[in-house]
Amino acid sequence: MKNIVTIGGGTGSYTVLSGLKNLPDVSLTALVCMSDNGGSTGVLRDELGVLPPGDIRQCLVALSEHSDIMRELMNYRFQEGALKGHSFGNIFLVALEKVTDDFGKGVEIASEILKVNGRVIPVTTNKAELSITLVNGKIFEGESKIQDANIQNVGIKDIFYKNDVELNENARVALLKADYIILGPGNYYCSIIPNLIVNGFREAIIESKAKIILPINLTNKLGHTTHWKVSTYVNDIEKYLGKIVDVILVNTEKPSKEQIERYKLAEGDGVLIEDDFKDNRVIRDALLSHVISEPIIGDQKTPNIRGFIRHDSEKFARCLKKIIN
Amino acid sequence: MKNIVTIGGGTGSYTVLSGLKNLPDVSLTALVCMSDNGGSTGVLRDELGVLPPGDIRQCLVALSEHSDIMRELMNYRFQEGALKGHSFGNIFLVALEKVTDDFGKGVEIASEILKVNGRVIPVTTNKAELSITLVNGKIFEGESKIQDANIQNVGIKDIFYKNDVELNENARVALLKADYIILGPGNYYCSIIPNLIVNGFREAIIESKAKIILPINLTNKLGHTTHWKVSTYVNDIEKYLGKIVDVILVNTEKPSKEQIERYKLAEGDGVLIEDDFKDNRVIRDALLSHVISEPIIGDQKTPNIRGFIRHDSEKFARCLKKIIN
Repeated sequence: MKNIVTIGGGTGSYTVLSGLKNLPDVSLTALVCMSDNGGSTGVLRDELGVLPPGDIRQCLVALSEHSDIMRELMNYRFQEGALKGHSFGNIFLVALEKVTDDFGKGVEIASEILKVNGRVIPVTTNKAELSITLVNGKIFEGESKIQDANIQNVGIKDIFYKNDVELNENARVALLKADYIILGPGNYYCSIIPNLIVNGFREAIIESKAKIILPINLTNKLGHTTHWKVSTYVNDIEKYLGKIVDVILVNTEKPSKEQIERYKLAEGDGVLIEDDFKDNRVIRDALLSHVISEPIIGDQKTPNIRGFIRHDSEKFARCLKKIIN
Repeated sequence: MKNIVTIGGGTGSYTVLSGLKNLPDVSLTALVCMSDNGGSTGVLRDELGVLPPGDIRQCLVALSEHSDIMRELMNYRFQEGALKGHSFGNIFLVALEKVTDDFGKGVEIASEILKVNGRVIPVTTNKAELSITLVNGKIFEGESKIQDANIQNVGIKDIFYKNDVELNENARVALLKADYIILGPGNYYCSIIPNLIVNGFREAIIESKAKIILPINLTNKLGHTTHWKVSTYVNDIEKYLGKIVDVILVNTEKPSKEQIERYKLAEGDGVLIEDDFKDNRVIRDALLSHVISEPIIGDQKTPNIRGFIRHDSEKFARCLKKIIN
C-alpha cells in the first residue's frame, strides 16, 4: 500500500483524485488549500465566519464512493432565491462546522457520509487570508482579488498570510507518512503556493521522505504566470519547498486548435507552456483530456473560467501507476 | 410485526415517533402533511417552487438512528446571512428534490442517509395550498394565514385545496397495510385535517382494516378550537373520516400551574380540554410531559409557540404498547 498525498485546491485536485482513486493498493490523502474567498465560498466566509468549503467539497466528491446522485447533490448549485449561487455541498460543510464547532471534524463526518475512499484534510484550520505584496509596494488582500489582478508585470515581492496560519497536525502527519507527494496541478498562486506558505509546511516537507512529483500545469494564467516555461515552474516551486522535486511530469499532447483558441480568448497569449527542461527527472507522457467540456464557471462573484484545457484523469492515473510501481 | 401509520405534521408526529421507534416488533410509517407554507419552509416554497420540507424533516429526525450529531445537523438553523432562519435539513430536502426532480424520491434518499428506522411519506406530492372559507364568505388562503386567523367565531364553511391534491400512492398503500393508524396529535386545522382532505384519503381510510387511534390533543388552539371538549374532537374528526375511530386516547395528568399560565399567556382561556366523553372506546392514561421545555419557536416569519404542554414520548409509547399487544 502506497501513501499518496495530493496538494492543491479544487478543480486540479479533483482531476487527479478522480483518476488515482481507481488505482489498486494506494491510500489517498488530499491536502486542500484554505485561502479561497471568492464566490459562494467567499459569501459563506463573510456572512457566517466559517472556513472555506468549496475546494474541500470538490475533493470529497472526487473520492466519494457514494451514489452518483449523492455526488450530484454535493455539487448542486441553487439557481434562485436567497440560496442562489450556493452549492449544496458548501452549505453542508458550513452547517457541519457550525454544529461540531470544528471544521476538520466536520470534514471527517462529511467523509463518512459520502463514503470517501481516502482522506480529505484542510491544510490549515486557521482563518487564512492570502495576501501578495508587489515589488512596487502594492498589496492585494484576499485570494479573489489576487485571482483577478496582474501580479506578474510588476513582480511579486512576497506572498503571505496576514495572521498566523499553522499547518494542520493531520496534514503534517500525512506529509511525513507519504510515499509520494503530488504537487498540483492547479492555479499556481491561488491553489498551490498557498499550501506551501502555511507555517510548518516547509519543515514537514523537508522532513518527509516522500518522493515529490510535480505535474506541470497545462496552461499559464494571464497576469500570473504568462509565458512561463517548465523550467520556470520547477525553479520557482523549489524555492518555496526548500528542496528539489523528484519527478517532473510534462504533458506531450498538443491541445486542439479549438481548445487553444477558446483558452486564448480568456487568457490571452502565452498560454501554453514551453517544454524547455533538460533533466532526467522529467517524465513526458500524453496527459491531455480531449473532451472540450463546457468551462466550469466559478461562483457568481468570481466567474473565472476553469479548464478548457485539462488533464485527463485516467491518463494521469496510468502515468502515476508506472511511477509508483 | 405490527404496521403502525402515524398521521400529522411536525412537532406532534415527532413526539409520537420518537417514542414508538423504541417499541419492539413495530414497523412505523409517518404520513406527513404537505400544506405548510410558513417560516423557512414557506420561504423555500416561494423562492424555489419546492414542496414543504419542514414537517418531513422533523419526522426523519425522529426516526433517524444515525448519530446525535447528524440529527443535530438536520435541525441546525442558520443564524446569520442569507441562510438565516433556514434549517439545514430543510435545505437538504430541497436540494434533494431539485437533484432528483421528485420530492418523494428525495425523502427516500434522505431516509437512507439518516438511517431512518421506518418510512416517512408525504401525504401528497402535489402542491398543496390549504384554504378555508368561513360561513360569512371570507376566505383564508395558505396555511400560515390560517394559523394566525380566528376561524372559530364565524365558523368554518369549508376547508379545501384550491387545486387537485391527490393522495400519494405510497401513502395509500401504507394506509391499506396498516394495523393501526394514529391520527395526531397536532395542530388540528393545520396538521391533522389537511391530511384527511387530500383526494383519495377518505376512500383509503374507509377501505383500510386498521384500528384508528385518536390521541386527543392536550390543549386547544386560540381561534381554532378554543373550548373544545373531547367529544367535540371525536365528533368533528369522524365527519372528515367517514367512519368512527376505534380508540380515543385521553390524557389524565394535569399540567403544572406554570405550564398552564405560560400557555394561557399565548393562547388565552379554554386551553385545556374537558374530558366529557362517555364511551368504552376511550382509554385514559397519564401521557403528559413534565419537562417545561423552552417553546419551539416557529420559523422567523411565523413565530408561533409550540408546546409548553406536550405529550411525553415514552409514556405515549408505553400506552400504545398496551393497546397493540
